[in-house]
Amino acid sequence: MTPNAINIAEKFGQIAQFWTPKILAELNGQYVKAARLTGEFVWHSHEHEDELFMIIKGTLYIDFRDRTVTLNPGEMLVVPKGVEHCPHTNGEEVWTLLFEPKETKHTGEVETERTVKVLEWI
Amino acid sequence: MTPNAINIAEKFGQIAQFWTPKILAELNGQYVKAARLTGEFVWHSHEHEDELFMIIKGTLYIDFRDRTVTLNPGEMLVVPKGVEHCPHTNGEEVWTLLFEPKETKHTGEVETERTVKVLEWI
Repeated sequence: MTPNAINIAEKFGQIAQFWTPKILAELNGQYVKAARLTGEFVWHSHEHEDELFMIIKGTLYIDFRDRTVTLNPGEMLVVPKGVEHCPHTNGEEVWTLLFEPKETKHTGEVETERTVKVLEWI
Repeated sequence: MTPNAINIAEKFGQIAQFWTPKILAELNGQYVKAARLTGEFVWHSHEHEDELFMIIKGTLYIDFRDRTVTLNPGEMLVVPKGVEHCPHTNGEEVWTLLFEPKETKHTGEVETERTVKVLEWI
């Protein structure tokens, strides 16, 4: 079956809510997800999964326990499994892609009111 | 260990050769690779691995047996395992990211003079 091209910006345009990742693609047991972010998320870690952030729009700050990493468009970062992190913005909107195993929960081992239990495709 | 940001364009600037993917990141048994492409590659498939292309610069054409998919910057495509494909350009330079299992060979089940046997990190 011949696959179709996926336009990343068009997909972000279909996301209504912040902090609610949507699935764009699946491969080798991994998902490519798109998330719109603003403000502060929660401190969390993923016990068994590494997580890649790739910034499409805006500036994302990821706090670690020892320092903060700044990510601009065209930059990416792999958060190794088990490493606590807390993403936040300076108030502007950020678009990030995420690459991670299908079973990864975006709030990791922490369950909050923000935890999205059923991911949707767009 | 707190990870560092990876600037995608800077990494492409460090690649001297065409059709020679370099590793940018590793996560969950997968590599994120960067490749500079121009001209035509070889028809091939990957028996066990899906392969994601994400275009950073230029226009990439991927021929399938039934049609050609055009990929512009900001677009991506997952080639499912077992599906024959042949990437090519219109002569201009193309920068693509690849996301695939660590064991994936870029020429798939076909071994040619272009097959790179030992991948390098940049």
